[in-house]
Amino acid sequence: MASVVNPPRGMRDFLPADKARRERVLSVIRSSYRAHGFDEIETPVVEDSSRLHSGLGGDNEKLAFAVMKRGLTVDDLRAAGEPLDLADLGLRFDLTVPLARFYASHRAELPTVFRAIQIAPVWRAERPQKGRYRQFVQCDIDIIGEAGPSAEVELITATAATLAALGISGASIRVNDRRLLASALTVLGFPAAEHDSALITIDKLDKLGQDGVLAELRERGFDSAAADALESFFRRPTTMEYLPFGEAAIRKALPEGADPVAVAELAAIGEAVNEVAGGQVVVFDPWLVRGMGYYTGTIFEVAHPELGYSIGGGGRYDGMIGRFLGTDVPAAGFSLGFERLVDLVDLPDADGADAVALLHDGTVPLASLARLQGDLVARGLRVRVERKPRNLGPLFAHLAASGFSRVATVTPESTADSLEFKPLR
Amino acid sequence: MASVVNPPRGMRDFLPADKARRERVLSVIRSSYRAHGFDEIETPVVEDSSRLHSGLGGDNEKLAFAVMKRGLTVDDLRAAGEPLDLADLGLRFDLTVPLARFYASHRAELPTVFRAIQIAPVWRAERPQKGRYRQFVQCDIDIIGEAGPSAEVELITATAATLAALGISGASIRVNDRRLLASALTVLGFPAAEHDSALITIDKLDKLGQDGVLAELRERGFDSAAADALESFFRRPTTMEYLPFGEAAIRKALPEGADPVAVAELAAIGEAVNEVAGGQVVVFDPWLVRGMGYYTGTIFEVAHPELGYSIGGGGRYDGMIGRFLGTDVPAAGFSLGFERLVDLVDLPDADGADAVALLHDGTVPLASLARLQGDLVARGLRVRVERKPRNLGPLFAHLAASGFSRVATVTPESTADSLEFKPLR
Repeated sequence: MASVVNPPRGMRDFLPADKARRERVLSVIRSSYRAHGFDEIETPVVEDSSRLHSGLGGDNEKLAFAVMKRGLTVDDLRAAGEPLDLADLGLRFDLTVPLARFYASHRAELPTVFRAIQIAPVWRAERPQKGRYRQFVQCDIDIIGEAGPSAEVELITATAATLAALGISGASIRVNDRRLLASALTVLGFPAAEHDSALITIDKLDKLGQDGVLAELRERGFDSAAADALESFFRRPTTMEYLPFGEAAIRKALPEGADPVAVAELAAIGEAVNEVAGGQVVVFDPWLVRGMGYYTGTIFEVAHPELGYSIGGGGRYDGMIGRFLGTDVPAAGFSLGFERLVDLVDLPDADGADAVALLHDGTVPLASLARLQGDLVARGLRVRVERKPRNLGPLFAHLAASGFSRVATVTPESTADSLEFKPLR
Repeated sequence: MASVVNPPRGMRDFLPADKARRERVLSVIRSSYRAHGFDEIETPVVEDSSRLHSGLGGDNEKLAFAVMKRGLTVDDLRAAGEPLDLADLGLRFDLTVPLARFYASHRAELPTVFRAIQIAPVWRAERPQKGRYRQFVQCDIDIIGEAGPSAEVELITATAATLAALGISGASIRVNDRRLLASALTVLGFPAAEHDSALITIDKLDKLGQDGVLAELRERGFDSAAADALESFFRRPTTMEYLPFGEAAIRKALPEGADPVAVAELAAIGEAVNEVAGGQVVVFDPWLVRGMGYYTGTIFEVAHPELGYSIGGGGRYDGMIGRFLGTDVPAAGFSLGFERLVDLVDLPDADGADAVALLHDGTVPLASLARLQGDLVARGLRVRVERKPRNLGPLFAHLAASGFSRVATVTPESTADSLEFKPLR
């Protein structure tokens, strides 16, 4: 007996029905983002190891699959100081680092304000678990070269429209601004050098609750006066509600002394998006953190009421492109987690109605079968030719799963016009 | 000044116009193969290293990029007997080995005769040179579970129809059968054990010519009587012509004693395809070899008159699936080299006519811009919103390259109906 043969650990094969479903969803996302003026680009799946490990990828850098140099000898293995010395390439762990590298490579050929779509797989050597894979698809849009809030408005409205095109309703987009977080922490008494560290705990608010966050901050040794100030602030009424947008509402949800530029920009973004959407698509979440260290301004995350996790997020990362280019260029992006999205979507199989199977008994000449198929394909049908098996059940089940809806029996005398199609079921 | 930033050696980025062009060509290929009854599947880009290095990939195995195990220590490096001991995964170098693994993994869920489409990148650590890349896309169709020549007829007619759908005319498909090569070599006096080796030289007929092949065979020490017999056979008139199909024609082009089953099957395939195509789409090439060791029957290759190389090929590989599954399953496939194809194709940009740019001067509220864009997108347009730059030339050039054809200026009073669109040029 042959041993069990599986795809690599934590990775998946996609059978016809799954693959077709995924491609339909991707096609809607691609079309919607294209309709909103974004252009698709593509980069290689690997990047130079030094770029992947430049510090921009945060914790994800540790999860990068490393590709070995070619032509290594045993002496090279003996001489290496650490495993990464043997790698010159790595599989990308996100689409943002490659985009920054792409922009640095091609800036002269790109428009001043560049709107990019990337729909592509990324790889992370995470411990495989339910819903978490080592190869998964991300759908990113980014606007590079626009410093003003129009970039965020475009990113959020395009994403909200894309979710609507996928039939996903009820999603809300929580937004915040890293500058507001920084000014809030400063006002509360956290030293600037400890902000990043404190935000790691505050990021767990959804999971730990206010008391849990306060306990962890104290346990981790943060200044007790600052923790007390945060506790007093938490105890104020209305602070943790998601408030409708507007400068006043934003200020009300924050400790006094919030960065006025950030307040004004965030209000402008939220008001514009909600006005267009005709509802509270965007809500302010004063304690939204998002993990990545490269964010410099607005941050956003898509929450879905049916799910315990976000289906996408993004923000402004003005400093990142400069790391590769040498000149700072403003940038902001929005990434949808395709694997989390695809299960929420139920799109009809667009070509199912026009897919037919031709059954023959082996006596019809090959040329006749090929001509019949060609004639029907030319009429716009999807056509599969099958030799009739003894037991039709399994064949029909497979045909239905692949989107075929009708079937006809072929004889040596059949023509495209004489075929009699019957429903598959 | 920043240093030059490039994609990894031998790999490419695709800018918007290139990416859009590639996606259009891929979409035509995918639709055409789907119309002919094939189903698309997907496998991870990496496979377990042991499967990639199972001997099925021939010389390509040496070109596989190796992915390092996670959690290696310096001690592991010291203890390794060879570099590959440190790798547990590798980037696939073709789509055939992964398909065989896929079929072995999922056989119970697949139809008896399984028709697969795979359109996906593969990686080979070749020395980069013009037209040869380290990441490139292959478009494969395969039929698994069909032992008879109907598989080859389907593969070839679907591929010929796909080339036609791409507007590629003049391509001819050279076919042969490994069994005919074997019987010819046997009749000429080459011992069976030397066939594979002799075919390596005979495969160079296009490049070296008959005299070059004979010289190399003699130089490499093959039996001189066999080489003499091949020379006599070469000197016969008509032997090297590409003959129209039919059993008689096939026999005439071969030394006497050709495998009669192979002759009959190849004739049936060629006659059916040419009858349907209404011309000599398929031609017999008695010395077509194709490099891969796994072929067991028919082999084919697409020649294009404008190019010095093939744009695709394939054949029957009945023994391969069994290597993973433990049970032999008949299989045949046809692979198109996308990178070679895409430059031959000139498809119109389908949505160019419906793409418009909205120019504003920065005084129009963000919400108004977003609403205008949304209204036009809802009417089926592709819409990009741009702040009017001082110099319109570069912006218009980028818009045209991305497929935009019309432009309108937006004021705070604009509505979707009041906009006046002008041609971009």
